[in-house]
Amino acid sequence: MPNSVYKKIELVGCSPTSLSEAISNAIAAAAEDHGNLGWFEVKEIRGNIQNGKVSQYQVSLKVGCKV
Amino acid sequence: MPNSVYKKIELVGCSPTSLSEAISNAIAAAAEDHGNLGWFEVKEIRGNIQNGKVSQYQVSLKVGCKV
Amino acid sequence: MPNSVYKKIELVGCSPTSLSEAISNAIAAAAEDHGNLGWFEVKEIRGNIQNGKVSQYQVSLKVGCKV
Amino acid sequence: MPNSVYKKIELVGCSPTSLSEAISNAIAAAAEDHGNLGWFEVKEIRGNIQNGKVSQYQVSLKVGCKV
Amino acid sequence: MPNSVYKKIELVGCSPTSLSEAISNAIAAAAEDHGNLGWFEVKEIRGNIQNGKVSQYQVSLKVGCKV
Amino acid sequence: MPNSVYKKIELVGCSPTSLSEAISNAIAAAAEDHGNLGWFEVKEIRGNIQNGKVSQYQVSLKVGCKV
Amino acid sequence: MPNSVYKKIELVGCSPTSLSEAISNAIAAAAEDHGNLGWFEVKEIRGNIQNGKVSQYQVSLKVGCKV
Amino acid sequence: MPNSVYKKIELVGCSPTSLSEAISNAIAAAAEDHGNLGWFEVKEIRGNIQNGKVSQYQVSLKVGCKV
Amino acid sequence: MPNSVYKKIELVGCSPTSLSEAISNAIAAAAEDHGNLGWFEVKEIRGNIQNGKVSQYQVSLKVGCKV
Amino acid sequence: MPNSVYKKIELVGCSPTSLSEAISNAIAAAAEDHGNLGWFEVKEIRGNIQNGKVSQYQVSLKVGCKV
Amino acid sequence: MPNSVYKKIELVGCSPTSLSEAISNAIAAAAEDHGNLGWFEVKEIRGNIQNGKVSQYQVSLKVGCKV
Amino acid sequence: MPNSVYKKIELVGCSPTSLSEAISNAIAAAAEDHGNLGWFEVKEIRGNIQNGKVSQYQVSLKVGCKV
Repeated sequence: MPNSVYKKIELVGCSPTSLSEAISNAIAAAAEDHGNLGWFEVKEIRGNIQNGKVSQYQVSLKVGCKV
Repeated sequence: MPNSVYKKIELVGCSPTSLSEAISNAIAAAAEDHGNLGWFEVKEIRGNIQNGKVSQYQVSLKVGCKV
Repeated sequence: MPNSVYKKIELVGCSPTSLSEAISNAIAAAAEDHGNLGWFEVKEIRGNIQNGKVSQYQVSLKVGCKV
Repeated sequence: MPNSVYKKIELVGCSPTSLSEAISNAIAAAAEDHGNLGWFEVKEIRGNIQNGKVSQYQVSLKVGCKV
Repeated sequence: MPNSVYKKIELVGCSPTSLSEAISNAIAAAAEDHGNLGWFEVKEIRGNIQNGKVSQYQVSLKVGCKV
Repeated sequence: MPNSVYKKIELVGCSPTSLSEAISNAIAAAAEDHGNLGWFEVKEIRGNIQNGKVSQYQVSLKVGCKV
Repeated sequence: MPNSVYKKIELVGCSPTSLSEAISNAIAAAAEDHGNLGWFEVKEIRGNIQNGKVSQYQVSLKVGCKV
Repeated sequence: MPNSVYKKIELVGCSPTSLSEAISNAIAAAAEDHGNLGWFEVKEIRGNIQNGKVSQYQVSLKVGCKV
Repeated sequence: MPNSVYKKIELVGCSPTSLSEAISNAIAAAAEDHGNLGWFEVKEIRGNIQNGKVSQYQVSLKVGCKV
Repeated sequence: MPNSVYKKIELVGCSPTSLSEAISNAIAAAAEDHGNLGWFEVKEIRGNIQNGKVSQYQVSLKVGCKV
Repeated sequence: MPNSVYKKIELVGCSPTSLSEAISNAIAAAAEDHGNLGWFEVKEIRGNIQNGKVSQYQVSLKVGCKV
Repeated sequence: MPNSVYKKIELVGCSPTSLSEAISNAIAAAAEDHGNLGWFEVKEIRGNIQNGKVSQYQVSLKVGCKV
């Protein structure tokens, strides 16, 4: 498919548990709206702190999907 | 809501008057399409010049909204 | 239109032939969904290689369209 | 003072009203702890949104003070 | 004018009052030397501090003018 | 608290085990000195290698705390 | 010429046809004012869109010339 | 060894399971060719998606080894 | 091949004719030394000028090849 | 010490003489307040000019110290 | 002079001897054309190699001068 | 040699004495393996600290050599 076109959508996935679950949550939400997810690129890793501990991981990522 | 997912939309707001009105115009336009705007991040500040004066401020920003 | 608002969409156009065709493919796909495309900004140039030759150019670009 | 040494402190000032008040709030807070503030550098502009309007401007800046 | 050429000049405008006056001062100075200013791009926002308050806003910007 | 001011502190947390433990170690150390940690931003991920294996994860992060 | 000094000038060349013509137009304009152009560095690639097609390529480049 | 020289090699490690395994795979491959690996720096985190789930983590990293 | 490892090599391809030939020249040279080239990423576009014209395009790119 | 935590402090060292003295001045000042300085990272090199000559070198650097 | 405007000029100074001489050469050349040089910012450090040794240091810097 | 291809190698040179010796050490090591070194680009300047003084300068640089 050498003339394909893809769209990049930017999402922030959150998880109280781990970076990988934050990524998975974002991709699962994207998959509900788009049928052809192909790849993701992590853009930023942040999180919230409560009582001196990580309470939430937040991962910004771009997801590429076929138009 | 530790498993929330947010989407980032990129907009350019314009105003002949001020940077803050350019930001407000972009957010107001986003609010017409999305119910859950949470935050914005300014990415770029530009503008047009006419007769040696600023004729338009242009602010690129990303707006985060809950999916 | 000094109070205009524009939206930026990020796309990846592909072509087996040239960088400019990759750009054109992305813009043509965007034009099917949006009526008011105004400008584009190239963000990344990549591609695939097969048998020691470029088999596909991939150009990431942001397209600005009037809201 | 050609052999001076300065320290850079990173702050985020907030304001419901304007970017400049967010900057001023951060500098006023820094001035309470440090006697020799010299300059600031804006690093990031963000904010919160409520009901489709900016509810808070947030400006990240580095403040230079003489050691 | 599809074959136009523009030149970008980098300036720092200063103002004791506001970011927008700093921008305006830079553009006004550029307009004295160049007849065809078209647009500006803000590159950096800094400033000086005196007595715990902003004494001067400094905005670095690139100004595009037709050759 | 629309006029709040936050300070960003930059730390490097280390762990022989995982990225998340490296983050947690940095935040725990920050919490000993500061009472109001709010969020963190990962800035860099590095590590040491011994005998062809990761011997230490090193995560640079900025921690925001209320002034 | 080990003690040479060069100046970098920033230009934006435009072309309705191709990226390379946009580059050539910028360099040709620079050559009218400066006798010793040595090299160029592409900084940004943008363009305008009309009727769903590229109507103008715009290439920002820095041109180095001997002082 | 104050006059040491190190070489940086850029690798992309992949894993269907986790970010840390992707890092480990890259380092293990580098260790087969180089005897003195000292440290790594993560440069990019990406991955592939299949059926709405992460099918592969891809971590770009630079590995420093003694010359 | 979910546990694959790739190496990135950085090259500068040159051509008196076009950007795409500069890319092709770099990839052809890489293919002589490496059997499994997979993709490329353009990192920088520069060139030389003689007599007010482009005498050489220079494209820096990273080439990914399977280890 | 695989679970160590380090703090990064940002300083600007100045010197009328050389870049290395500017670096040394910053580190010497940091050493007065902190007992465990480990490394530094140069972030920016600037300076002042008087009568067409460098009157002061200014080096921004981050210094890592053990918490 | 709170309403001052400065211009930034980009230069590359060269020297077979040292980084600081490369900087000085660029500033000396700028001083011949401009009366009010105020500061410089180093943007890039490069150089040429001959016979396995540095034959020329090249320092790109921006010089600020009062308009 | 308008169709030349160059390879960029990334090295870190160290020296207890000076930045320029760190650069020279890296280039001398590269020259032992490669016959055609052409230029270098400084990418990062770091170092170690002992007893409140610089104990080692570390300069990351890319070296270009003809393929």
